[in-house]
Amino acid sequence: MTGLPVLLRTVAEVRSAVAAARQGGQAIRLVPTMGALHDGHGALIERAERDGGLVVVTIFVNPAQFGPGEDFDRYPRDMERDLAFCAARGVDLVFAPAAEEMYPKGFATKVEVAGVGEGLCGASRPGHFAGVATIVAKLFNIVAPDVAYFGQKDVQQVAVLRRMAADLNFPLELLIVPTVREPDGLAMSSRNAYLTPAERAAAPALYRALRKGAGLLDGGERDPGRVRTAVAEEIKAAGAFRLVYVEVVDPDTMRPLDRVGDRALIALAAHLGKTRLIDNVLWPGEGG
Amino acid sequence: MTGLPVLLRTVAEVRSAVAAARQGGQAIRLVPTMGALHDGHGALIERAERDGGLVVVTIFVNPAQFGPGEDFDRYPRDMERDLAFCAARGVDLVFAPAAEEMYPKGFATKVEVAGVGEGLCGASRPGHFAGVATIVAKLFNIVAPDVAYFGQKDVQQVAVLRRMAADLNFPLELLIVPTVREPDGLAMSSRNAYLTPAERAAAPALYRALRKGAGLLDGGERDPGRVRTAVAEEIKAAGAFRLVYVEVVDPDTMRPLDRVGDRALIALAAHLGKTRLIDNVLWPGEGG
Repeated sequence: MTGLPVLLRTVAEVRSAVAAARQGGQAIRLVPTMGALHDGHGALIERAERDGGLVVVTIFVNPAQFGPGEDFDRYPRDMERDLAFCAARGVDLVFAPAAEEMYPKGFATKVEVAGVGEGLCGASRPGHFAGVATIVAKLFNIVAPDVAYFGQKDVQQVAVLRRMAADLNFPLELLIVPTVREPDGLAMSSRNAYLTPAERAAAPALYRALRKGAGLLDGGERDPGRVRTAVAEEIKAAGAFRLVYVEVVDPDTMRPLDRVGDRALIALAAHLGKTRLIDNVLWPGEGG
Repeated sequence: MTGLPVLLRTVAEVRSAVAAARQGGQAIRLVPTMGALHDGHGALIERAERDGGLVVVTIFVNPAQFGPGEDFDRYPRDMERDLAFCAARGVDLVFAPAAEEMYPKGFATKVEVAGVGEGLCGASRPGHFAGVATIVAKLFNIVAPDVAYFGQKDVQQVAVLRRMAADLNFPLELLIVPTVREPDGLAMSSRNAYLTPAERAAAPALYRALRKGAGLLDGGERDPGRVRTAVAEEIKAAGAFRLVYVEVVDPDTMRPLDRVGDRALIALAAHLGKTRLIDNVLWPGEGG
């Protein structure tokens, strides 16, 4: 498919486009985004396109998942570029609602996920995952996808949404696509656009530190405390960061491990100037 | 249709029965209940049957909507009688899951509705409406009904679920059926079974009091305080009750009115011995 994707602004339009596709026997595939699309999103879209059917990309900078003082206002927005990005990848349908379409006057409902949503970014961004779970529950009901695509970079978001989808019996599958990285290892993120050239040059230290932690586990280390310390020291050595957390957790529950067994996730968040970055590696992992 | 309805215990069975009906072009109609079925439920079922399609009655005493010290353990349960009740009304399918089917190990998600869920019963039963909203969100996703049927007696529940369904974009309609009353005016409720003969004889005072309040509004009274006082005094005069609340609220928002305009809801809750009863009248209303 070439040409621009169909750009829809209302829930009603999406429902009718999706219903028509479903009537035609197509599977429905959802890629929820906040726009400012990069090759990480590209990997999600390409996977969805490969899987076939109607691919719906949503672009919505969701105010409910930003806290006071966070970067909602300056979050990058460029619809024209995003549409071209989607067009180049054969996306059928882009849903980019206004805030009032998603949160009309009187809106009062919140989906909260305890446990997996509480530590890590949940601790430093109170309300963030409730905002994510609520908007994604809405998108699941609006688009009614067979499969929804998310990136491994947002690993705790994935854990929260898996829990939410299972707990609320959403009849769909979540498909997780590996993190896409710049050649120097920095995880792709819309927020990388905030970085000054000096910060951008320092940023790959995060992934380097995570690799160092995974290397310790490869070498037989089983004490999460030592892994955390090694990762934190690597980041400290890079100079530019304020570390928010580094944790070695169970990849399913997101709970800190007392001791590393068969699997672990090393996850971190750090501020680099005014930019908050996150990254993680699964161990043992697909090259990371 | 005669004979017993199909009794299903698992989500997977319900999904496949519903999918088959939908494939056959049938509309799907959901009547969620906690069992101990009475003519109030009967009115919901009969309305759903009249509307046509596949009628799914769910029977599940939902632990999440009972607080500590409430009547979860003694809540009446009689599956055999309930199945016969459904059979007599032509119900196609009864879904009566075990608690573990609805809340498997690790369950962690809660749907919260602010505003409409906060006053009235929400104030005296903390967590109740989150429990209701969460289980109903699950049932909506499991059964995927075109229409779900609820009773006006549970008016605040209806307001919470309307808000939840709209806010989370559930693609369905809520249909509200008027309260069914005993000949002496007592609103039908599974909890009426708890009442001793003396309590049962006293119980109609609640509806009498509500009618008195509505009568004041009919007569031109517009001060909610005076209406509340008159209702409360009528209940006090009956002797047997401990009033939890009586409020004159906006029927949509459930917020107490400063002054009565075109429409009002008079709602109350009271303990009669060990039994908590609720009732309400809309004003101006269909006979109450």
